[in-house]
Amino acid sequence: MRATLIDAPFEIRLADVEDPRVEQPTDAVVRVVASCICGSDLWSYRGENDVTPGTKIGHEFVGVVEDVGGSVSSVVPGDLVVAPFAYSDGTCDHCANGVQTSCRAGGFYDGCQAELVRVPQADGTLVVVPGRPDDDVMPSLLALSDVMGTGWHAALCAGVREGSTVAVVGDGAVGLCGVLGAVRMGASQGIAMSRHEPRAALARAYGATDVVGERGDEGIEAVRTLTGGAGVDSVLECVGNGAAMEQALGAVRPGGQVGFVGVPHGVALEPRDLFRRNVGVRGGIAPVRAYLPALMADVLDHSIDPGRVFDLTLPLAEVAEGYAAMHERRAIKVLLRP
Amino acid sequence: MRATLIDAPFEIRLADVEDPRVEQPTDAVVRVVASCICGSDLWSYRGENDVTPGTKIGHEFVGVVEDVGGSVSSVVPGDLVVAPFAYSDGTCDHCANGVQTSCRAGGFYDGCQAELVRVPQADGTLVVVPGRPDDDVMPSLLALSDVMGTGWHAALCAGVREGSTVAVVGDGAVGLCGVLGAVRMGASQGIAMSRHEPRAALARAYGATDVVGERGDEGIEAVRTLTGGAGVDSVLECVGNGAAMEQALGAVRPGGQVGFVGVPHGVALEPRDLFRRNVGVRGGIAPVRAYLPALMADVLDHSIDPGRVFDLTLPLAEVAEGYAAMHERRAIKVLLRP
Repeated sequence: MRATLIDAPFEIRLADVEDPRVEQPTDAVVRVVASCICGSDLWSYRGENDVTPGTKIGHEFVGVVEDVGGSVSSVVPGDLVVAPFAYSDGTCDHCANGVQTSCRAGGFYDGCQAELVRVPQADGTLVVVPGRPDDDVMPSLLALSDVMGTGWHAALCAGVREGSTVAVVGDGAVGLCGVLGAVRMGASQGIAMSRHEPRAALARAYGATDVVGERGDEGIEAVRTLTGGAGVDSVLECVGNGAAMEQALGAVRPGGQVGFVGVPHGVALEPRDLFRRNVGVRGGIAPVRAYLPALMADVLDHSIDPGRVFDLTLPLAEVAEGYAAMHERRAIKVLLRP
Repeated sequence: MRATLIDAPFEIRLADVEDPRVEQPTDAVVRVVASCICGSDLWSYRGENDVTPGTKIGHEFVGVVEDVGGSVSSVVPGDLVVAPFAYSDGTCDHCANGVQTSCRAGGFYDGCQAELVRVPQADGTLVVVPGRPDDDVMPSLLALSDVMGTGWHAALCAGVREGSTVAVVGDGAVGLCGVLGAVRMGASQGIAMSRHEPRAALARAYGATDVVGERGDEGIEAVRTLTGGAGVDSVLECVGNGAAMEQALGAVRPGGQVGFVGVPHGVALEPRDLFRRNVGVRGGIAPVRAYLPALMADVLDHSIDPGRVFDLTLPLAEVAEGYAAMHERRAIKVLLRP
C-alpha cells in the first residue's frame, strides 16, 4: 500500500510499504476512506520535534473495516468507522474514567495518511457510523477523529457552560472547533482571536460573537474591553506555545479557567500568578473517544458541521503539497482522499 | 487597645496601640470576641516572608460590632459577626462572580489578633450570626473566617463531588477542614495524609476513610494502592510548598484535579506533565465570603463542627506562646480570647 513518510523537516513523501495486517486478536485493519493533516503533524514537519527518517505519519481517519482479529466483536468487515487519534481498550480504569488517552493498553497508530491502517484494541477504539451517510458528511465525521473532539475537550477543560463568556486562542482547526463546541455548550459570548479573514469568517459562522485581531497586551486589553473589564470566564488555548498561554492567562477573569489542548512547547505556568487570581488550568491529550458517540449524533443530525474546517481536499498522492499548504497557512486543514 | 505585633522572625509581642475608628462611611469597627493564629501567619513568624518591625498581624476573628460609618446598612452596633479574612464590597464584577478575594475595592485588615478591628466595606464583608448562639459554637463560627472556607475552596477547586475519591495533603487546620468539606460534598473515600496521631484522629472524626503516613514516592504509592492503582479523582493540596504539590500531582489519577490553597512557596508546575495525564490544577486565595452564609447555616444546625481544629485556647496576653505552640506543632490551631 501507499503511505506517507517523513524523512526530515519539510521532507514528506508517499512510498510503497508493506500492507498492515491483523497481528493480535484484538486488531482490525481498516481501509482509509479519508484522512487528513493535523496541526500537530506540523511540529515534526517544521523540525520542532525530532523525526527518524522514513517514519510513517498521520493519526486521523475514517475508513471501512477490512479485516478483524478473532476476539473483535464490535465491528465487522464492511463497517464504516471513525477512528479516534489514539487507540484504547475501553475497559481499564482510566477508560472507565473517560480518559482513554491514558488507557493502560492504549497507544498511537503507525501512520494514517495511508491506504490501510492497523488499529489495535479495535473494540474499544473504533466507532461505527450508523446507516449510510451522504458523502458530504464525511469531512465532519473525519473531524471527529481529532479536531472536533479536541476543541470540545478544550471547552470542557475551560469549564464552559450555559451563559459563559469565552475566548479562543488559536484559529487553526482545533480553535475553530473549540468555538463550535463552546457555542454548542451554551456560551453567551464567543471571542475568536484571529487575524486571518477566512478563519475569522468560519469562527463567526460557528457562532463567535466577536473577533479580536490584536495579540499580546493589546489582545488581552481588547478581550477585557469586550467583557466590561473583567476578562472572560473561560479561555480555550488551542496553540500550545508560550505566547498563546500568556494570551489565555491574560484574557481570563479572576476565578476563570483556561483549557489547553495544544502540546505545550515552551509554555510556563507560574503558580503564584494562578493563585493570586484564582485561575485554573486544565488540559491535555484529548480523550476524543469519550466524546465521539455524542458528537457523531450531532454531526449526523446536522447540529454541528466541523467538516467546514477542511478548506482543501487533495488526493493522497499530493500529500506533500498538503503539508506545504498548511505550513504556509494557505489552508486551515487538508483532507486527503486515497 | 492591645494588638499583636511581629518585630522579626520568632518575635511576637502584645502592645498598646491606638484604637481603630471609623474612617470611611463604609467602615465598621468590631470588638473581637475570638481571634486565632493561622498557618499562613507562620510564614512571617518563621522568616519565610519579610516583615517590617512592629507590623500588626492576624486576619481571622468573630466579634461584636461597636461602631459603623454613615453608609453602612447591613450591620448595626451589637451585632455578632463573622469576618472573612479579606474585605470586599460585594458589588463589583469580581464579587458578583464569587471571587471576593479579587474585589476591586477589597483588601486585608490591619491586624486582627487584637481587641478592636476596623473593617472596611462592612456591608460587603461582615456576616451577621442570627440568634444568640451558644458559646460552644464560637470556635466553629471563628473557623468560618478562614480555615473552613479555605478547606471548602480546596475541595471545590479539586472538583470534589458525590462519590469522588479524595486525598488531602496537609494535616493543618485547613487540610482537616478540607477533609470535612470533601466528606460533606459526598466524597466516597477520603484519604488524609498525616503522620501526627491527634491530627489523623480528627481527620477520621471528620470522615476520612484512610490515613496515609508515608510521604514522597511511598506516600504516592500508598494512595494508588488504596485506589486500585489509579490514584484519586481529587487532591486537596493544603500546604503550599513544592514537596506537597509533588505529592498531590503524584496521587491524582489521569483526568483528575488538584485544588491548592496554600500560598505557593517554591512550587513548580510542569505543563507537559499536566498535559500528558490530563491533570487540572486550580486554586488560590479562598473567597471565603462566598461560602460563609451556607457554611454558617451548617455550623448553626451542627451539620459541621470545624471548630474542633482549635485544640488550644489562650488569652490574647499569651499570643506569643500560641505562635510557639503552632510552630512546634504542639497545637493544630490556637484560639485567642481577648
